[in-house]
Amino acid sequence: MKNIDVCLTPDLLHLHKIDNAIVVVADVFRATSCMVTAFAHSVSCIVPVATVEECRALQERGYLAAAERNAMKVDGFDLDNSPFSYMESWMENTKVAMTTTNGTLAITKSRSAVKVLVGSFLNLGAIAHYLQSQPYDVIVLCAGWKGRPNMEDTLFAGALIERLKENYMIAEDSAIMAWRLYNQGKGDLLSYLANSSHIRRLQRLGISKDIAYCLQHDLYDVVPVLRGNTLVNMEI
Amino acid sequence: MKNIDVCLTPDLLHLHKIDNAIVVVADVFRATSCMVTAFAHSVSCIVPVATVEECRALQERGYLAAAERNAMKVDGFDLDNSPFSYMESWMENTKVAMTTTNGTLAITKSRSAVKVLVGSFLNLGAIAHYLQSQPYDVIVLCAGWKGRPNMEDTLFAGALIERLKENYMIAEDSAIMAWRLYNQGKGDLLSYLANSSHIRRLQRLGISKDIAYCLQHDLYDVVPVLRGNTLVNMEI
Repeated sequence: MKNIDVCLTPDLLHLHKIDNAIVVVADVFRATSCMVTAFAHSVSCIVPVATVEECRALQERGYLAAAERNAMKVDGFDLDNSPFSYMESWMENTKVAMTTTNGTLAITKSRSAVKVLVGSFLNLGAIAHYLQSQPYDVIVLCAGWKGRPNMEDTLFAGALIERLKENYMIAEDSAIMAWRLYNQGKGDLLSYLANSSHIRRLQRLGISKDIAYCLQHDLYDVVPVLRGNTLVNMEI
Repeated sequence: MKNIDVCLTPDLLHLHKIDNAIVVVADVFRATSCMVTAFAHSVSCIVPVATVEECRALQERGYLAAAERNAMKVDGFDLDNSPFSYMESWMENTKVAMTTTNGTLAITKSRSAVKVLVGSFLNLGAIAHYLQSQPYDVIVLCAGWKGRPNMEDTLFAGALIERLKENYMIAEDSAIMAWRLYNQGKGDLLSYLANSSHIRRLQRLGISKDIAYCLQHDLYDVVPVLRGNTLVNMEI
């Protein structure tokens, strides 16, 4: 039987053997929700980069560039980190470069996995469906916040486990804890998250609309996958 | 208001500022439960050491020596890692040297804190009572298992938060998650832990009696504290 495990932050990724597993990266508020939304609106690719400088270099080569630090857009870039910025029809077939505080780093750290997928509540069902067709173990990598575990990405991990529980072993405590937290909170995730640190951070920024959006399940049937240095929407 | 935060594994301790906080180390199954039991049975001190070799060196200097690796006693040592081994009347006023897979490392990593306390369910109330008399923030350091978070130490962190919630801010997601898990499981911790990885590891070793013992709350009124390299029972 395949295993599903959870890595609560990229700072613990060294404890996981990812070379023979599919890694699903989640940075629910908001990087991976933006990526999923962008692919659902037909961008052609997204290049996740670690630094603002790399992002600017791609901008100069014609990419739409999105740079976020500490939940705010960096000056001089085209796109912020709100999923609503990725729904415009003129974005169709554009190439996007993106750097964020946590999510893009988590993706670049996972490169040695069999496959790296981008997960969010928005494409939860599509991710679960794809994983079940594959022979590999799964590791959900929660992007967290500056190295620390966070609630929303842990809840996503729990949600994915809930979808896969019939066909996967849930062997490790991080996975069991994520699953239990999701089951405790799933009736009203927004209230359950009300005290979490990142929700408070985002609410100070006045973007509660983003939060409610990112918590919707199964909005889009897209599975972003890393090919080389570039995310593309997998043809399924 | 003072803060209480949780570090889910020693591998994340670099993300916490411990220099102005009291660190409570928990390795519930079984290192810190053994230590608390030993102090409750009047050992004079416990020296936690990182390696089996250091432990042997102290044995040669007359210490009772306890060395555990992978939940098993290392050959040639006096004591194993069962709390029932620390209840003998002849242990009174003896000096103990101890090395374990996770717990002693967590203690030695915390040395720069204002104070390092040893916590377990057995002395939960004593720890909570002492902390409330102090002006410092609190960080609960879960010993985990070889760098990974585990369920039982996370539940201890949640139990301590439950006791301190009136007087401390619970600001970070790791702390909120630990607290919620404890509240979900507190009615029957033994069942709640039944699928956890370390319980399965210990049950294979046939020590379910230890597990039930270690989950008892408030059995002993002792507060082990690190003084230099040595744990002593704080005079309160």
